[in-house]
Amino acid sequence: MTENRKPLILITNDDGVQAKGINELMEGVRSLGEIVVIAPDGARSGMSSAISSLNPVRLHLLKKEEDLTIYSCSGTPVDCIKLGINEILERKPDLVLSGINHGSNSAICVIYSGTIGATLEGCILGIPSLGISLTDHSPDADFTQAVKYAKSVARKILENGLPKGVCLNLNVPDSPDVKGLKVCTQTMGYWEKEFQKVKDPTGRTVYWLTGQFANEDSDNEHNDEWALSHGYAALVPLQIDMTAHHLINDLNTVFCHCGLDPQSQENR
Amino acid sequence: MTENRKPLILITNDDGVQAKGINELMEGVRSLGEIVVIAPDGARSGMSSAISSLNPVRLHLLKKEEDLTIYSCSGTPVDCIKLGINEILERKPDLVLSGINHGSNSAICVIYSGTIGATLEGCILGIPSLGISLTDHSPDADFTQAVKYAKSVARKILENGLPKGVCLNLNVPDSPDVKGLKVCTQTMGYWEKEFQKVKDPTGRTVYWLTGQFANEDSDNEHNDEWALSHGYAALVPLQIDMTAHHLINDLNTVFCHCGLDPQSQENR
Repeated sequence: MTENRKPLILITNDDGVQAKGINELMEGVRSLGEIVVIAPDGARSGMSSAISSLNPVRLHLLKKEEDLTIYSCSGTPVDCIKLGINEILERKPDLVLSGINHGSNSAICVIYSGTIGATLEGCILGIPSLGISLTDHSPDADFTQAVKYAKSVARKILENGLPKGVCLNLNVPDSPDVKGLKVCTQTMGYWEKEFQKVKDPTGRTVYWLTGQFANEDSDNEHNDEWALSHGYAALVPLQIDMTAHHLINDLNTVFCHCGLDPQSQENR
Repeated sequence: MTENRKPLILITNDDGVQAKGINELMEGVRSLGEIVVIAPDGARSGMSSAISSLNPVRLHLLKKEEDLTIYSCSGTPVDCIKLGINEILERKPDLVLSGINHGSNSAICVIYSGTIGATLEGCILGIPSLGISLTDHSPDADFTQAVKYAKSVARKILENGLPKGVCLNLNVPDSPDVKGLKVCTQTMGYWEKEFQKVKDPTGRTVYWLTGQFANEDSDNEHNDEWALSHGYAALVPLQIDMTAHHLINDLNTVFCHCGLDPQSQENR
């Protein structure tokens, strides 16, 4: 972080700039530095790391006061981070915060979450980044505990940094008595029974996404679902290198040393 | 795979069901099994693992003939896979194929790619999955080599399966003389100079996503960018567990054993 300057903190979310979660977050961490918020102009849940590759993106300045600037953006959470770093901020931020999401982003949901998409983007661009979610979907959820944990983790990141290529995913249980913080692994599992098949007003079939989480890792006390269900805040380090390094040698044997090369194979 | 039955292959992409790449792929692998295509009704580039959480999704049957059924879908590539597995297919597919994408999905682009989003989704749902991309964006690209490699890798997956939690990302260089297949790591790097700032017809500023890839891993002969730039097809195993397992202990020290717990800390 630049000496003699307050830390610069870029904040976004996927629930939109009007959501209670991001507004409580920006107030909660205001004492930590200069805050710039660039957040979607409405809900972008489930946008993952989507980028606006087909349409241009618009920015709208909503507020500018000492150490707090707020923009809304027509794009995705990742667009918000890219615009902030590339176009808006005059220096590289010291921290990216994404959230506080209304609803958990634990387990396999890191893959689908716009909150985490923005967090990964901060990490890709070389900035220590933290995504924060509360396990309560309601618009008027109580963010008191989530803000407290977010601020503590954010302060620690500003003091210590994070290793290159790694960001943090913090989920806070919806409880007035959170028991503490656990560093966890991402719970493995999948969503099932995912659609409600209904008729639209013209009688045509449409599919609404819904579903329930099938936990394939439920006897593991080290993962985030276990921590959350036992009253702890869960902090998972996520990496942007998705390579399954442990399989490189095995796959070389299967795919490259036994005649796979199409040049040497009949085209059945 | 079920005995006495042809393998069932679910195919999607992110360029849309009309794209040349997916049509060449479905014809190319037709001899390998029963093919069901569920693909977006138009371009969904850069959609990552986005899901349609805010709007319902529609399906439209385009073609049904022996061993080839084609649907278009109003949703994202991941929606296509979820709908296929949850609602359309009568049995679990033996293989998910996503592509062939017009343009590469190498390096850090795995994070943004809808092609890879669908591939990861197949993997999350427990199905061996392969994403395929050609390093040529043009609508009339020559997919001859890409189809050949896709078919060979697909056949090998049907024979051998893939480890749980891992899928494959195949990028094929735009060349009539691909030198062979290399199992690679995901090249680390980021996109920079990402926006063109232009005026819309009403004179308002809009931002178009563009940019160039900054390779932070350019002296590594084991990554996919190296392989592609040297004329090889690149096969990267990707895992859906994003946990940075090697950092769990270090982070426990930083975040959990030195007074971070907000309960024991003044709220500065």
